[in-house]
Amino acid sequence: MSRFWSPIVAALKPYVPGEQPRMANLVKLNTNESPYGPSEKALEAIRAAADMDLRLYPDPVALGLREAIARRYGMSVGEVFVGNGSDEVLAHTFAALLKHDRPLLYPDISYSFYPTYAGLFGIEAVEIPLNADFRIEIAGYRRPAGAIILPNPNAPTGIGLPLSDIERLVSEHSDQPVVVDEAYIDFGGESAIALVPKYENLLVVQTFSKSRALAGLRVGFAIGQRPLIEALERVKDSFNSYPLGRAALAGATAAIEDEAWFEKTRAKILATRAALTKGLEARGFEVLPSQANFVFARHQNHAGQTLAAKLRERAVIVRRFAKPRIEDFLRITIGTDDECAKLVAALDEIL
Amino acid sequence: MSRFWSPIVAALKPYVPGEQPRMANLVKLNTNESPYGPSEKALEAIRAAADMDLRLYPDPVALGLREAIARRYGMSVGEVFVGNGSDEVLAHTFAALLKHDRPLLYPDISYSFYPTYAGLFGIEAVEIPLNADFRIEIAGYRRPAGAIILPNPNAPTGIGLPLSDIERLVSEHSDQPVVVDEAYIDFGGESAIALVPKYENLLVVQTFSKSRALAGLRVGFAIGQRPLIEALERVKDSFNSYPLGRAALAGATAAIEDEAWFEKTRAKILATRAALTKGLEARGFEVLPSQANFVFARHQNHAGQTLAAKLRERAVIVRRFAKPRIEDFLRITIGTDDECAKLVAALDEIL
Repeated sequence: MSRFWSPIVAALKPYVPGEQPRMANLVKLNTNESPYGPSEKALEAIRAAADMDLRLYPDPVALGLREAIARRYGMSVGEVFVGNGSDEVLAHTFAALLKHDRPLLYPDISYSFYPTYAGLFGIEAVEIPLNADFRIEIAGYRRPAGAIILPNPNAPTGIGLPLSDIERLVSEHSDQPVVVDEAYIDFGGESAIALVPKYENLLVVQTFSKSRALAGLRVGFAIGQRPLIEALERVKDSFNSYPLGRAALAGATAAIEDEAWFEKTRAKILATRAALTKGLEARGFEVLPSQANFVFARHQNHAGQTLAAKLRERAVIVRRFAKPRIEDFLRITIGTDDECAKLVAALDEIL
Repeated sequence: MSRFWSPIVAALKPYVPGEQPRMANLVKLNTNESPYGPSEKALEAIRAAADMDLRLYPDPVALGLREAIARRYGMSVGEVFVGNGSDEVLAHTFAALLKHDRPLLYPDISYSFYPTYAGLFGIEAVEIPLNADFRIEIAGYRRPAGAIILPNPNAPTGIGLPLSDIERLVSEHSDQPVVVDEAYIDFGGESAIALVPKYENLLVVQTFSKSRALAGLRVGFAIGQRPLIEALERVKDSFNSYPLGRAALAGATAAIEDEAWFEKTRAKILATRAALTKGLEARGFEVLPSQANFVFARHQNHAGQTLAAKLRERAVIVRRFAKPRIEDFLRITIGTDDECAKLVAALDEIL
C-alpha cells in the first residue's frame, strides 16, 4: 500500500497464472498448452514478419487477421474482434459489456480470472454453484442478472454444455449480454458461434493459445453481432490502439488458415485424452468427462495436495486449486502420449 | 448505442491513431516511426523465437527483458515494469496511479490519448495551457492536484523541458505521482530516470517504438521505485497475465542490448532533423525547437490543412491536429535524408 496508489489498487486480488518453471526434463502439464508445436506455416509467417517493417506500427484494426477469422467461421469481418490473448479480450468484455445495475452471473467453480476482472472494473457478481456432478445447470441462472459469462467447456472441470443449453440460456436472457468463453471448445465441444446470427446478446470468445498452440504469441478473439463488437472496439480504442504486433498478426493469420495442422493435432490430443482417462480410472481416479485439452481428476484414497507434491518431486507439474469442493482434484493437461505415460508411471510409484 | 453496453461505453471518446495507409511509394512521415529498420540482432532474436516453444505461455513477469532494461539504465529489476507498448503501460498507469480525489493535471496541447484514458477510468482532469511559445510552464502546475502526467519532450510540439524543471515539478508535488512520458527522450532530451532513486513519486515511461524502431512489436516500459511499480503490477495482473509474447520479449531484449545500433541511428536522425529544420525555415516555416524525432512547423502564409492536403496529393503524409492554436502546424516525422528531400521538393511545388 502506498499513498500514490489509486484507491482501487489496494483492493485488487490479482489473478495468479499457472507457473512457468524452468526445470530440465520437466513434464509440464499445468497450463493447458498444446504438446505440439504450432503450425509450421504460422512460424514461417512470424519469421517473415521479422523484417524492416517492424519499425512501422501494425494495422490498428487488424483487418487481415479479422478477415481470416471471419472466413473460417462464416462471419463478416465486422463481427470479429481481436486482442492480446483472450485474457485481454475478456478484460475488455468485462468493461464494455458486463457492468450493469444488476449483478453479473458466473459459475462458482470456473475460470479464476472472472472474479479478478469483476474486482478491477467494480462489477457486482453472483456466483452460481455447479451441481453435485460439477456441471453448470442453466436453471440456476434464472434470476435477475445484468449479464452472464461462462466457459464452455467449463474450466477447470472440462465439462461441456450442449449447444441446446447455451441457446436456452441466451434466449432466456435476451435483454442481457451472455458471453460464452470457448477457450477449450475445439477439443470436443459445440461452438456457440453458430448461434451468433440469431442472438444479438451473444458474444463468443476464443483463443489461439490452446487448439492453435500459440500461447506464446498472445492472440484471442471474440465473435458477436456489430453492437457488441462495437462496444469492445470503443473500449480497446480507449486503452491501446495497437494491441497486436506485426508478428502476432502474421502468425495468427497463417495459423487460422492451416486447417490440416489443426485437425491433425486436435485428433491426436483427443486420442491421448481417451487413453489417459482410461489409465487414470484404472488407477482409482474419478475423471470428470472432459471436452477440453485437460482432465480434472481426483483419487479416491489420496489427497490432491499430496499427489501434486509427489508428482512435482518427479518433475511432473499439474495444476491444483486450493478451493472448497475441488481441492482434491488435479487438473492435468493432455500432453504427448509420452508425457502422459511419464505421468502415469510417476503415479504408479506414488500410489 | 446498445442496451447491452456498460454505461461507460457510450461516453468514451476513443483515441484516433495516425493512419496506416497502404499506398505505393508513400513518404510516410505521420506516426513518428523510425525510418531505419530495427537492430538486426532484434530481428534475429524474433526469428529464433518463432519455434516450437511458441506453444508455451511466455514468462508472465518478463524477467529477462526487465533485467536487460534495468542493466541499461542502472536500475534494479523490481524498478522496471513492461507492457504491450507504452500505450498499455500508460493505460495501467492511469488506472493504478492517476485516479485520486483531486484532479489529474496535464498540458492542454499534449499526447491526445491522455483525455481518452481519463475518460475510460473516470478521472477528473484539468488541462494546463502551454505558454505563448508552446512551452510547458512548471509554474502552471502549482495548484491542488491528485497527480500529474506530461510528456518530455512534449508531443506534438517536440519541445523538451530541462531536467531541472522536471525535478522542480517532482519535488514540488512530493505527495502526488508525477509521470514523465518519455516516448521521444532519446532524440536529445534528458531522461528523468536519473531522478528515480531520489523521488518516490516519480514514474518514467518509455517505448521501444521510436528510438528502437520497433513500433510493430509493441513494447513499452516504466521505471520507478517499488511502490509505484507494484501498483502497475497489481493492475496488470488483474487485466492480462501475459501482455508480452515470446517474440516481443526476445526482440526487445536484443534491441535494448544493441547499443551500437541505437547510437548510430539516433545520430542519423538528429542530423537529418537539423537539416530538415534549416530547409523548412528557409521556405518560410516557423519550426518549434525539437528534441524529438519529428518537427512541428507552420508556414507564415499557408494554412496547415491546405498544406497537408497538397502534400498528400504528392504521396507525402504528415500529421495535423484540428485543434485551436495548433491547427496550422504540421507534425513531420524525421524520415531518411531522401524522404525529407522528397518532402521539401513537394513543398517547393506547393508553396
